[in-house]
Amino acid sequence: MRVLILGGDGYLGWPTAMYFSKQGHAVAVVDNFTRRRMHLERGSDSLTPIQSLHERVNVWKQVTGKTIEMFVGDIQDWDFIHRVIKNFVPEAIIHYGEIPSAPYSMIDVHHATFVHQNNVIGNLNVLFAIRDFAPACHLIKLGTMGEYGTPNIDIEEGYIEIEHNGRRDTLPFPKQPGSFYHLTKVHDSNNIMFANRIWGLQATDLNQGVVYGIETDEVNLDDRLLTRFDYDESFGTALNRFCVQAVVGIPLTVFGKGQQTRGYLNIRDTLQCVELAMLNPPSAGSKMRVFNQFTESFSVMQLAQIVQRAAAHLGIDVEIAHYENPRVESEVHHYNPKHSKLLDLGLKPRYLENSLVESVLTRVIQFKDHIIPDHIVPRIRWSEGDKGEKVDIVEREAKSEEAVVSGD
Amino acid sequence: MRVLILGGDGYLGWPTAMYFSKQGHAVAVVDNFTRRRMHLERGSDSLTPIQSLHERVNVWKQVTGKTIEMFVGDIQDWDFIHRVIKNFVPEAIIHYGEIPSAPYSMIDVHHATFVHQNNVIGNLNVLFAIRDFAPACHLIKLGTMGEYGTPNIDIEEGYIEIEHNGRRDTLPFPKQPGSFYHLTKVHDSNNIMFANRIWGLQATDLNQGVVYGIETDEVNLDDRLLTRFDYDESFGTALNRFCVQAVVGIPLTVFGKGQQTRGYLNIRDTLQCVELAMLNPPSAGSKMRVFNQFTESFSVMQLAQIVQRAAAHLGIDVEIAHYENPRVESEVHHYNPKHSKLLDLGLKPRYLENSLVESVLTRVIQFKDHIIPDHIVPRIRWSEGDKGEKVDIVEREAKSEEAVVSGD
Repeated sequence: MRVLILGGDGYLGWPTAMYFSKQGHAVAVVDNFTRRRMHLERGSDSLTPIQSLHERVNVWKQVTGKTIEMFVGDIQDWDFIHRVIKNFVPEAIIHYGEIPSAPYSMIDVHHATFVHQNNVIGNLNVLFAIRDFAPACHLIKLGTMGEYGTPNIDIEEGYIEIEHNGRRDTLPFPKQPGSFYHLTKVHDSNNIMFANRIWGLQATDLNQGVVYGIETDEVNLDDRLLTRFDYDESFGTALNRFCVQAVVGIPLTVFGKGQQTRGYLNIRDTLQCVELAMLNPPSAGSKMRVFNQFTESFSVMQLAQIVQRAAAHLGIDVEIAHYENPRVESEVHHYNPKHSKLLDLGLKPRYLENSLVESVLTRVIQFKDHIIPDHIVPRIRWSEGDKGEKVDIVEREAKSEEAVVSGD
Repeated sequence: MRVLILGGDGYLGWPTAMYFSKQGHAVAVVDNFTRRRMHLERGSDSLTPIQSLHERVNVWKQVTGKTIEMFVGDIQDWDFIHRVIKNFVPEAIIHYGEIPSAPYSMIDVHHATFVHQNNVIGNLNVLFAIRDFAPACHLIKLGTMGEYGTPNIDIEEGYIEIEHNGRRDTLPFPKQPGSFYHLTKVHDSNNIMFANRIWGLQATDLNQGVVYGIETDEVNLDDRLLTRFDYDESFGTALNRFCVQAVVGIPLTVFGKGQQTRGYLNIRDTLQCVELAMLNPPSAGSKMRVFNQFTESFSVMQLAQIVQRAAAHLGIDVEIAHYENPRVESEVHHYNPKHSKLLDLGLKPRYLENSLVESVLTRVIQFKDHIIPDHIVPRIRWSEGDKGEKVDIVEREAKSEEAVVSGD
């Protein structure tokens, strides 16, 4: 298939591009290096020393003989993106091309509006370009489980049947996103649902959980093919960040009681899910399809303990601390989101195991010298943005017995 | 109270400014004349010959001795709007400052993205400016009943209690907006709900029906105080547009079967509703309040027949025609939206009567020479935007017996 990957220079975009190229698809990537520029702005960086996109594409060609096409530009720019879609005529678009950070969107008004512009306007341009230049294309859009928030009822996959005053309808599942970033994803979902309804645009909305991991078969071919690995407060995902904190030797940053529960998945399963969505498109004329894309749920505290135990196996002694929660969120809540549709399509989950965490820790140790310690503890608060002061430790956790035993 | 009216040069903004000024409030208006500029772009115009905002404010001073303060600028410009709010320190903001046209937003990608930028970014700036410079201010935001779409269940006011798998929660009512414009209003509502939740920002979201009418007590003081009256496809509301079509002598533009049902209200009731919301703010710490702001429901066909009958009383013979529907919408649907909360606060509705329609027709006749006939029949299609071709008549309606009898 002809596959266009928006955000193809990113943490998930680049591994996806290599994976599909390996499978024999004709792959093109679009990126304008927003992530790299945001790191310049914040003074943070990827832990892994990543190559330029040009170099990545060259190395991929050297190592596999396969070509990944590259378009450098901004999807907010209609003149750019409509020409890419008109010329490449993709059969599927994997849309990772958005700013994915809740804290970054909460810094101040300028960041909140910038994230809105980047994500919402970019996505609108993609919708119109598909309508006008690739109407048979299947849009596979990455959203997030965070769009739903934490309602006191089970979360369904995109839609819920409601009975009310003796009548019934199946309606979009009500969403209560937890940051301006999460809001942009909800806006996008609503816009895509509308484009699907009025133009018949074929679309799958993937509400993805938090991704962890650093290795895929393709990444492992050559260190010059490494994907980025963020651990700073804006772009680092929970388990990855905990691994860096463990190696640096600062207490793992559990916000509040740490009972906040979320869905998680391995980066390899992201590739599998996106592939399943692409190879099994919704039938023509069907409404926007929604999958909840994660494999298992953990509380933040559970995740911290998993990292603590895995570190102990490697002889690293890790402390867990409860920090002042910079976010406004429910720390104790019901959480039972459904996620059967990708399993029905054949997803074979790789559940989180010690060996995976150890492999992440090993990679972190490999690149230990790159760690910028200033960015490991958050300072962006939901209430007032970034005033430059890091959040404080409220309470230290007694070390788990297992960790102490194994670690010594 | 100190009241800031965003969009104070508009159809509702200007009458609201005069109304509150008359009640003794300290009123300031903000506008950047987007509506006037959009009419320049489309070649359409207000039927009523409106004065410049400067002249309006001068005449208001002459006629009543009262001062309306004026700030000319764009709420998309943080530097502008934050200074207005910092200096004026409003106790209430009435936010009409958005592009309100479904067809305009459907012209093409540029209009869809422009409406998103204007509405969503402007509203975000207002939220941050309130947080930072007027945290006690009550935001009264105009949304639309069109945000809900036409679900097959009764529409509640903003929230719905859902029981699901043995658990319960009260969640935002699921919305299915019908145009990119309506989508921006949903995005705004979601952003305001979040600002309310994380910052305690005091907010009322008014899901307003379609407004009709041209006269208020203040407008009637002097023709130089007239508000705008749009009848073109982009900015004309249904009943107002039908009145112009009746006077010009073209068949009333009923889309499809005309069974699409919507909520309506008199412009005088808009003033009453906004005043009730302002004088009865939500209690501190309460969640975003939502009112459905309309007084009665009509199908498009019923509305056309009402205009037909009223015109007949004035000796005008009016034909109703069914046109190809340029929109993608359900033409037959359930419609039972709740609207009791404003009534509970004391709203005394002025229901639609022949005398009101006759007063609109009389004003239209007064300004008959201003009508630009090219803009009375729509040409913006939801499927493909504006290709310059007007929609066709599909079927002509046999004249109603009453109309024929009264009209001759």
